[in-house]
Amino acid sequence: MHPSLLQDSVRGCPKEIPHNEKLLSLKYESLDYDNSENQLFLEEERRMSFLGFKCLEISRWVICGLIGFLTGLIACCIDIAVENLAGVKYYVVKQNIEKFTEVGGLSISLILWAVLNSAFVMVGAVIVAFFEPGAAGSGIPQIKCYLNGVKIPRRLMLHLNPHLLNTLVVKVCGVICSVAGGLAVGKEGPMIHSGAVVAAGVSQGRSTSLKKDFKIFEYFRRDTEKRDFVSAGAAAGVSAAFGAPVGGVLFSLEEGASFWNQMLTWRIFFASMISTFTLNFFLSIYNNKPGDLSSPGLINFGRFESDVSVCLLLSSPKPCVISLYVHRPCLQVMEAMLVAPLGPDQSEDYPLQLFCADGEYNSMATAFFNTPERSVRSLFHNPPGSYNPLTLSLFTLTYFFLACWTYGLTVSAGVFIPSLLIGAAWGRLFGILLAAITPNGSVWAVPGKYALMGAAAQLGGIVRMTLSLTVIMVEATGNVTYGLPIMLVLLTAKIVGDYFVEGLYDIHIKLQSVPFLHLEAPATSHWLTAREVMGAPVTCFNRIEKVGTIVDVLSNTSTNHNGFPVVMPVAASDNLGKICGLILRSQLIVLLKHKVFVELARSRLTQRKLQLKDFRDAYPRFPPIQSIHVSQDERECMMDLTEFMNPTPYTVPQETSLPRVFKLFRALGLRHLVVVDSENRVVGLVTRKDLARYHLGKHGLEEMQLAQT
Amino acid sequence: MHPSLLQDSVRGCPKEIPHNEKLLSLKYESLDYDNSENQLFLEEERRMSFLGFKCLEISRWVICGLIGFLTGLIACCIDIAVENLAGVKYYVVKQNIEKFTEVGGLSISLILWAVLNSAFVMVGAVIVAFFEPGAAGSGIPQIKCYLNGVKIPRRLMLHLNPHLLNTLVVKVCGVICSVAGGLAVGKEGPMIHSGAVVAAGVSQGRSTSLKKDFKIFEYFRRDTEKRDFVSAGAAAGVSAAFGAPVGGVLFSLEEGASFWNQMLTWRIFFASMISTFTLNFFLSIYNNKPGDLSSPGLINFGRFESDVSVCLLLSSPKPCVISLYVHRPCLQVMEAMLVAPLGPDQSEDYPLQLFCADGEYNSMATAFFNTPERSVRSLFHNPPGSYNPLTLSLFTLTYFFLACWTYGLTVSAGVFIPSLLIGAAWGRLFGILLAAITPNGSVWAVPGKYALMGAAAQLGGIVRMTLSLTVIMVEATGNVTYGLPIMLVLLTAKIVGDYFVEGLYDIHIKLQSVPFLHLEAPATSHWLTAREVMGAPVTCFNRIEKVGTIVDVLSNTSTNHNGFPVVMPVAASDNLGKICGLILRSQLIVLLKHKVFVELARSRLTQRKLQLKDFRDAYPRFPPIQSIHVSQDERECMMDLTEFMNPTPYTVPQETSLPRVFKLFRALGLRHLVVVDSENRVVGLVTRKDLARYHLGKHGLEEMQLAQT
Repeated sequence: MHPSLLQDSVRGCPKEIPHNEKLLSLKYESLDYDNSENQLFLEEERRMSFLGFKCLEISRWVICGLIGFLTGLIACCIDIAVENLAGVKYYVVKQNIEKFTEVGGLSISLILWAVLNSAFVMVGAVIVAFFEPGAAGSGIPQIKCYLNGVKIPRRLMLHLNPHLLNTLVVKVCGVICSVAGGLAVGKEGPMIHSGAVVAAGVSQGRSTSLKKDFKIFEYFRRDTEKRDFVSAGAAAGVSAAFGAPVGGVLFSLEEGASFWNQMLTWRIFFASMISTFTLNFFLSIYNNKPGDLSSPGLINFGRFESDVSVCLLLSSPKPCVISLYVHRPCLQVMEAMLVAPLGPDQSEDYPLQLFCADGEYNSMATAFFNTPERSVRSLFHNPPGSYNPLTLSLFTLTYFFLACWTYGLTVSAGVFIPSLLIGAAWGRLFGILLAAITPNGSVWAVPGKYALMGAAAQLGGIVRMTLSLTVIMVEATGNVTYGLPIMLVLLTAKIVGDYFVEGLYDIHIKLQSVPFLHLEAPATSHWLTAREVMGAPVTCFNRIEKVGTIVDVLSNTSTNHNGFPVVMPVAASDNLGKICGLILRSQLIVLLKHKVFVELARSRLTQRKLQLKDFRDAYPRFPPIQSIHVSQDERECMMDLTEFMNPTPYTVPQETSLPRVFKLFRALGLRHLVVVDSENRVVGLVTRKDLARYHLGKHGLEEMQLAQT
Repeated sequence: MHPSLLQDSVRGCPKEIPHNEKLLSLKYESLDYDNSENQLFLEEERRMSFLGFKCLEISRWVICGLIGFLTGLIACCIDIAVENLAGVKYYVVKQNIEKFTEVGGLSISLILWAVLNSAFVMVGAVIVAFFEPGAAGSGIPQIKCYLNGVKIPRRLMLHLNPHLLNTLVVKVCGVICSVAGGLAVGKEGPMIHSGAVVAAGVSQGRSTSLKKDFKIFEYFRRDTEKRDFVSAGAAAGVSAAFGAPVGGVLFSLEEGASFWNQMLTWRIFFASMISTFTLNFFLSIYNNKPGDLSSPGLINFGRFESDVSVCLLLSSPKPCVISLYVHRPCLQVMEAMLVAPLGPDQSEDYPLQLFCADGEYNSMATAFFNTPERSVRSLFHNPPGSYNPLTLSLFTLTYFFLACWTYGLTVSAGVFIPSLLIGAAWGRLFGILLAAITPNGSVWAVPGKYALMGAAAQLGGIVRMTLSLTVIMVEATGNVTYGLPIMLVLLTAKIVGDYFVEGLYDIHIKLQSVPFLHLEAPATSHWLTAREVMGAPVTCFNRIEKVGTIVDVLSNTSTNHNGFPVVMPVAASDNLGKICGLILRSQLIVLLKHKVFVELARSRLTQRKLQLKDFRDAYPRFPPIQSIHVSQDERECMMDLTEFMNPTPYTVPQETSLPRVFKLFRALGLRHLVVVDSENRVVGLVTRKDLARYHLGKHGLEEMQLAQT
């Protein structure tokens, strides 16, 4: 399937591509959080001294500190750049208005405004569409998938592997342009993505874009370690975006749920803290108030007073992603430019402010004219009576549709801020109406609080995050007494939302047919056993295998397996071998590349022994099998896999129930689970897709189809 | 070993009982977080409808809500009772002082004061020492062990199983008396314990103390479910104690670390929230300010202003638990009474306040005279110059030794508040000194902030909690900008502390020889394999086994095994059988009690089939084998274990490295892990003690001895 087509499916409406969400793509690779404890690895570990382990531990802390620092710095750059660009824009337009209001009315200024916005958005859209299509969108679904254990191919979405620097630059520039261009977008999603990208880059100690290997942190070049750092990066991103370090940690945990570890969490928290404080520190210097660290995060809800007593529970409307079928980069840019002038900040209310008397100002105009963050804050804190209900409803509707449209654009953008703004608007509207219809209106007339609850409900209904979102909201409001109402609102929003449709990110993930593993097996799946779910027959290798066989198996594009049980044949008549190990495609490729053949080893005794370093250097972009030349003579050689295979892969008997298999698979972050019979013979192999296939639908357990695309 | 002796070892000084911390007791049983998925269980699960699972889920939420509500209520009762009792005490003494100051000086008042304090403490000590010795101490080590997966016998410590109501009542009364009696103790440890006890009680839907079975929540009568609820209870306790719902959740997660699950965490958070808000709500009513929910938690640090810029990092001195060797209940009561009159609140500074001019007051006297919580707050917030450095040093020293002594007493008491107070005192002292020696003292002269950092360092050095403590402190101060300094202080305290000795709770746990599993296997243990660590030979049963054999094995007190692999004999010559299941002692006992013998089943065809309910009714106090009478005839019968054994126990090959075994064991919360050879024959069994035995000492990997006691 062509990448651009696949990308469409991301943005495709469920109704238009009905099969896609019932399919699981086999094209996605799984990450392996289970160490391949082969002889090389064990030898290295056994050689390593206690001091060596201490050093590794210290490096991990250093990396986390770096991740936090860089993420905070990026957040700071974005903030300052957006502020300055927006300032320039406002200044130019204001100049223009002052010049032309007398002579020609506002139309010229409006056009100028539109042109400026379009220009910004165009720059943002161009760099994204042409250079890094993966930088589009918020990036949160990608992070979710990665933490869940799915490797997302580069052309599609997440660039945690290749050309990190490009993605990062494009992402950052993209979000600056989108926000400065007045699109109905936020910068928090991109912040999270940037944090993850920074983490993936820093932790590997090398850069593909710069073609430079710093020869440090080589120990961390494997999936397990990298995932830990990416968690820290995502947390640092959340932390910088919302000034919510604890919320960041919980976000990472909620998404990468099954891999909790105390020291890791502590490091993630460290990265989060450093990130918030870096941002704060530099912003305080920028604002000429060095040392004033009181307003953490890019988004600040302002301080709420603590007199919440009773709060209304409202659930949010489910989000409807309006998707546009525009595939070609040029068209994508055109589309983005089209939306910008429609953007909220030059609506018909704009002139209102201009014609106000001196000293007065129109709150509605503020809501439209300001950056979304400021509007949210105004909606929360402006005194009762600041907003006209009718204009507010109009604003809510306009902004809702704009946000839906914008979400599908090829720009770097987040969905948090628009959601918060829409929610705050209708929450405030609700508060105003409630105050109007209740007899003793004064008791209920705290529209700012309804705005907060509305914002929470709207955002919760869209992203369906729970614990982490509560904590983020509480940290952003800086008042723990709002915790319970926010929590209840989020809970209600989730329950009501889940009844109709999944969360936005989950829809996103499903539309891409990603084999996403949820936390637990579907409740009613106890009647399924490993025998039913496993893939069989399994391609196995012998301990000492012919090179030709290996090359043929690896070259077979129709199967494209990644893990192969290594077996000992029991008897000639028996076609099932006894399990004695598991070897990965990536390992076999390195072995073939270095021509580790039994015959050659005998003839060239002086040859350097293959080391773990050779595998690490190849990580994570192992060459395809086609690029490795194996001559006809070499095909007749033998390869001894004993030293390189994982000699103790996890196995389960065939009768194991699906929830049990699921639990093992998820708790250990496995990629392959070998199913054996009572004789320890390999009868099947369970992989991620086999487990992700089953899900609870409206009518009980449903099974998704597997697709090669 | 006699229980009282064992209890001594809890409080024993490491120097006096040198072997104990190098030993692992075999007397502790492990909890089983792995469901025994036998045929009965699978049948029940397969019968259950989707709606049934929904109902279960809703029950879980209801129980968590109840746990939160009750914990909050208990916290409220404790708070109000302490306040009133202390009020009465102060009133009586004040009356006395006014009456006698003119005629006989203060000596009579001091004696009255001492008598009153002693009386309170006596009541507290009597009920604890005579009725429930397990209610002594803070209870946090017990909760740690329970969440880690160790069942603590009743006579020793935690009463999560029997007579919950008794423990709860004694614990609550004990802590009220201790705090009102002026001991240097806090109420937060007991709150956490109370929360856990409430959870263990509520979730089982029955009470042994009241001899009442409500016939509800029967599904939750197994270790897995119960542990989840106990986590929620502990979190609710933390939440009520500190007004820190997020901190509570993180505390539970940090301790019960390996069992993270998103829905569970969300429920735990719900319980925490409900708990804080219940407490708040009732306290606001009690204080005649209904609806004012602004001061959550029993402990409140007051509001800090946000101008922290640079903070000094100080690590804490390691705690030295002075332990007293007083075993008999009477002596224990005497001891407790002895400490009370020495208690801080009638020190020599007391008269100072009385001789102050009207309108003036002496901050030092306040520190001694007040409840510890108030003193902490004063140390944080009083303006510079309130304290005399000399008196403050004296206070710190006195209080330090008193707190050490008090910790060993037979009263319900927590270590948090005394630690905070000591830390705040020396932190403030440090701040004063720093201001005195620096030239431009005014910049550094914020002694309240040094007090906060000192408090964090002291507490962190004692309990060695990390993430959760940071969040608790931040939530209690209500200011997120202190997050980074607090975190750095805690980190330093932990690193420095760990260099010398383990944390207080860990020392506690080690002195009891509890097989506590840390998060990861020791770093340098890769050279150990399952073959070396496993217990062998293993007592196995056949699928159809003679009753006599089973009774004999179960009655053997020297082995006292709890799990038995079920095997199929391969050949007559082979003494190792092929694994086909795993059965637990508790299951066998229920089978024997109900006489589920093959012969009887044939003769009495109408007999009711054994159901899962029979196992649940017996949970968690399965009768000992000695109480089950098996006649000589019955000994010749056979038992068919097929239906009741877990047919798919987790197994590992012998070559698996220790870290790999550890990971599997910990991630799945196992109790037994069967080690098999390449033929799937049982060669060994790994249990908790086999893994807990290895730990990193000063000189690399150390192995502890196993003791039957």
